Amino acid sequence: MTSQKSDSAMSPKITGELLRQLRQAMKNSKYFSEPIQAYIVPSGDAHQSEYIAPSDCRREFICGFNGSAGTAIVTEQHAAMWTDGRYFLQASQQMDNNWSLMKMGLKETPSQEDWLISILPENSKVGVDPWIIAADQWKNMSRALTSAGHSLVAVQDNLIDAVWTDRPERPSTQLRYLGLNYTGMSWQEKISALRAKMTKGKVTWFVATALDEIAWLFNLRGADIEYNPVFFAYAIVGMNTIRLFVDLKRLSVPALRDHLQLDSPCKPEMRVHAYPYESVYSELQAICAAHSPKDKVWISDKASCALTQVIPKIHRTPIPYTPLCLAKAVKNATEIQGMKMAHIKDAAALCELFAWLEKEIPKATVTEISAADKAEELRSQQKDFVGLSFPTISSVGPNGAIIHYRPLPETNRTLSLNEVYLIDSGAQYVDGTTDVTRTVHFGTPSAYEKECFTYVLKGHIAVSAAVFPNGTKGHLLDSFARAALWESGLDYLHGTGHGVGCFLNVHEGPCGISYKTFADEPLEAGMIVSDEPGYYEDGAFGIRIENVVLVVPAKPKYNYRNRGSLTFEPLTLVPIQVKMMNTELLTQKERDWVNEYHRICREVIGAELERQGRKGGLEWLIRETQPIA
Amino acid sequence: MTSQKSDSAMSPKITGELLRQLRQAMKNSKYFSEPIQAYIVPSGDAHQSEYIAPSDCRREFICGFNGSAGTAIVTEQHAAMWTDGRYFLQASQQMDNNWSLMKMGLKETPSQEDWLISILPENSKVGVDPWIIAADQWKNMSRALTSAGHSLVAVQDNLIDAVWTDRPERPSTQLRYLGLNYTGMSWQEKISALRAKMTKGKVTWFVATALDEIAWLFNLRGADIEYNPVFFAYAIVGMNTIRLFVDLKRLSVPALRDHLQLDSPCKPEMRVHAYPYESVYSELQAICAAHSPKDKVWISDKASCALTQVIPKIHRTPIPYTPLCLAKAVKNATEIQGMKMAHIKDAAALCELFAWLEKEIPKATVTEISAADKAEELRSQQKDFVGLSFPTISSVGPNGAIIHYRPLPETNRTLSLNEVYLIDSGAQYVDGTTDVTRTVHFGTPSAYEKECFTYVLKGHIAVSAAVFPNGTKGHLLDSFARAALWESGLDYLHGTGHGVGCFLNVHEGPCGISYKTFADEPLEAGMIVSDEPGYYEDGAFGIRIENVVLVVPAKPKYNYRNRGSLTFEPLTLVPIQVKMMNTELLTQKERDWVNEYHRICREVIGAELERQGRKGGLEWLIRETQPIA
Repeated sequence: MTSQKSDSAMSPKITGELLRQLRQAMKNSKYFSEPIQAYIVPSGDAHQSEYIAPSDCRREFICGFNGSAGTAIVTEQHAAMWTDGRYFLQASQQMDNNWSLMKMGLKETPSQEDWLISILPENSKVGVDPWIIAADQWKNMSRALTSAGHSLVAVQDNLIDAVWTDRPERPSTQLRYLGLNYTGMSWQEKISALRAKMTKGKVTWFVATALDEIAWLFNLRGADIEYNPVFFAYAIVGMNTIRLFVDLKRLSVPALRDHLQLDSPCKPEMRVHAYPYESVYSELQAICAAHSPKDKVWISDKASCALTQVIPKIHRTPIPYTPLCLAKAVKNATEIQGMKMAHIKDAAALCELFAWLEKEIPKATVTEISAADKAEELRSQQKDFVGLSFPTISSVGPNGAIIHYRPLPETNRTLSLNEVYLIDSGAQYVDGTTDVTRTVHFGTPSAYEKECFTYVLKGHIAVSAAVFPNGTKGHLLDSFARAALWESGLDYLHGTGHGVGCFLNVHEGPCGISYKTFADEPLEAGMIVSDEPGYYEDGAFGIRIENVVLVVPAKPKYNYRNRGSLTFEPLTLVPIQVKMMNTELLTQKERDWVNEYHRICREVIGAELERQGRKGGLEWLIRETQPIA
Repeated sequence: MTSQKSDSAMSPKITGELLRQLRQAMKNSKYFSEPIQAYIVPSGDAHQSEYIAPSDCRREFICGFNGSAGTAIVTEQHAAMWTDGRYFLQASQQMDNNWSLMKMGLKETPSQEDWLISILPENSKVGVDPWIIAADQWKNMSRALTSAGHSLVAVQDNLIDAVWTDRPERPSTQLRYLGLNYTGMSWQEKISALRAKMTKGKVTWFVATALDEIAWLFNLRGADIEYNPVFFAYAIVGMNTIRLFVDLKRLSVPALRDHLQLDSPCKPEMRVHAYPYESVYSELQAICAAHSPKDKVWISDKASCALTQVIPKIHRTPIPYTPLCLAKAVKNATEIQGMKMAHIKDAAALCELFAWLEKEIPKATVTEISAADKAEELRSQQKDFVGLSFPTISSVGPNGAIIHYRPLPETNRTLSLNEVYLIDSGAQYVDGTTDVTRTVHFGTPSAYEKECFTYVLKGHIAVSAAVFPNGTKGHLLDSFARAALWESGLDYLHGTGHGVGCFLNVHEGPCGISYKTFADEPLEAGMIVSDEPGYYEDGAFGIRIENVVLVVPAKPKYNYRNRGSLTFEPLTLVPIQVKMMNTELLTQKERDWVNEYHRICREVIGAELERQGRKGGLEWLIRETQPIA
């Protein structure tokens, strides 16, 4: 799936009183010696998570807009909110007249910096919570304001929290630990590997701030953020010490204490010292105070400004991708096995779903929402199901053309024999994470729908079957997915693929397949990404074909400079609807790819459906995997 | 052609005495208040030109190595020179024992900064000529040295020049002006267009430092640098003033004075004020001193540190591509017509060359050097020939695998019926610049040679025939050129294409087709680039197929979001040897492309050869453009 968030509340939030209180707080000497003239409310949390917990939805609280991307700024006279093209409509519906919508990407829209500079009185102070602004964003904003005679100020108390009387607590869900049968590597081994990289990088400390990296490092999972099995924590790893910052109550479960060896004797350098979540700031301060002048600290350049600035500049080594991010991306044999298992179960559920849809749709009782619910129900019957990995995109006809659509009661369409249906969905299982999109027609697709589908399929196959040298970055494959569409003057305005975690976030770095990135890391055997080209005809239909694929070694005829070659192996094994294809547009190679893919689907998922006694799904699978001529 | 320089002097230069003198100068109080402990000698000139004049070959002078890329650093004890993989062998042959060769790209090789920091005594001063180091390089080096307690110092007098007693003068060749029939746009119109962009960018001054941009702006050409029809100059353009900094003697020719309207009455804002080349520093200083606080100055971020730092930071707006660079890249109708004419003449010369080679080779008297000479001779017979656009790469068998090969007496091979021959060559004509590579066999190529050639051809066609949306950056097309090679485990280690000037530099920005760049500007109709995939089998043969191609609008079936589509039209019209193709590996579409290309070659170049009465070339052309089945 591609990335976004939308929700049901489409009437504007009334914000007059809230803004009055916030402006009051901006002058309140409790928070600062001098009043501030503007306050910035970014949309992230202290860990720069893509999905955030309800307690972190501060931008939504103050302006009403609940999309995934947006920044609000409140001054004494104005209130404005910047978001991108995906959200113009939604934001205009969710915000009242107190707010100006700043449409990013349009030429006439000023940047936040330029807007602030144009309206602020001379010598103004602009405040922001340094915990929810990333260090690099702080730097840019601060530089722009300073050059215009203003200043950016870190406001330690969050002013939204000050006026948000019924703000939810930060979640502190039960932690789950994963054994070697799921992780393939103990946390002690991961710590050792991390330290080896630190030694090589001549670094003595590493500060982990990304929640999925910390979950991966300690082989722990939580449920603090919907769809993402992570928990609020920080970690600081030195050559002889491991500090985990987390709500200490969570560590009271004996089995968990065992897993982390909190009470048993162990080598001092493998002893985990648990600290309260909030103490990371003071502990990092203490560590830095005790630094020798040569000590270097690794921290992600996307970490919060607050934590980054604790580290004196001469010790600080900001990195685009941490060693944990890189290690986590290359799945080991156990993780790959788990991902395969998860995808088999997921495919079984989807085959059953499509068989059920075919039966029910003629009754005209199935809607986008009920289809999504049915998909969740069928997945939840699978072993080790934990939850969805993102909100299901279930869309009929014109709704399919809204790339980040999510069915709401007021937009909910009924599935029929006359329109294209696109479903992009996935789940978290204890053994792996899934993400799959299929586009199907239950009646007779038009020639144009089939033509577009076939171009998308050609792109999907071009990536999936690509052979490329070791060391190739994913962005170099993006054009393969578009060539067939381009040749007919078509395109799609999103990337082609993203990294996928193993029972972790469905979007993860540092690899992907997109024309937008350049600083991605080279693809390596064991990495897992999605392959999801699409085509969207506004007001008519949407098409996307998405598999999760594993990077595997390839064995072409030659081996130039012994570099070795790579290709992809699909983990997703759900038939691609032949009815939607114009097979005349496919080359023989592409037809062979489809037939071989369907052969594997039938063999692997057929056995699973049989084992599970799911006859409807099995019949559907057999029919949908007939070879094409 | 790809980019490089090598030369004939392969015995090491004796540098002991020179180094002694340089180290003396590093302590000489004539140049600075305190001695410096290290001196950096970059390879560029004050305009960051790719090719440089003999007077600027300072790095070559001090160490003996004359490749196109390399930086020398001399300390009190050490002398080291950094260069990349293309030049390891050449550099080791050209430098004596006083020098350590620093092989860039190898893991064990320290960066210049790290090396300096590892060997310098505390608190050292490192000197560099601020005119030949680019502003961004200065910044990085300075930052690294400062963080280690050292400092980077701008040494105004070049210390190499101080010890280089027989240093050649800076060239000051005769200037040539181009009429509207060549340029399609007067320099006054170009100035007006530049000022319009400055107004839009809210900028009041523009400093031009790149020699090809200045030549283009004033519709002037020189011959100061071999292969590049440019002349040493700077230009500063304000909203009401135009200042040209150039050796004033060059402007004494009446026709030139007329062209620049130096003596005739004209609007004051179109008056060109000519200043001595050396006065650019003091004039820019004076301009900046008179600045209002809101004045902004555009300067390329690749301009020299010296000139960049004249502009106070708050006025300075460094830009990756100047408006001249962008305007120059999009050729107008007159320039396109000129480029087409130049390519027709160039193709006629090459057809004649290949016909001559076929006749002469059996006598075993043609060598790489004599073939290159013959190519030059035949080109020089064409109308408006000025000179070569780069040193001809003429290579037989294993020499072809050396990507930047240039035949030298000691490597010169004889062309035969048994080896592959690769010739990459081009010329400057008054109406345009050419650059073409053909790979041919005069006997019977092996199956493997044909197979590799065919993969390269498939890549060449994939780029040339690609249809892509307006706004696409060239680097997104790079993988198309490699897909067929990758599929068989092969690849080539250079980019696929570069921008080509119109009677200007054969390499120009801001567009190109390479996996290495990301900050290239989108391709636009009217831009001209090369399409030159290759394959190099070390010790055996090299293959490259290069056409210069023009970006043109395409008209595919659909037009998504009215973005419009683009494709390429080959300007180079020289047959691609069918004998080298394994046509069974080509798809029908690829065969059609070859036949259509050869049809046009025959039609257009055939007519020209006929007109010129070149029967040998014409017969060869007719035979080589027979359609394939």
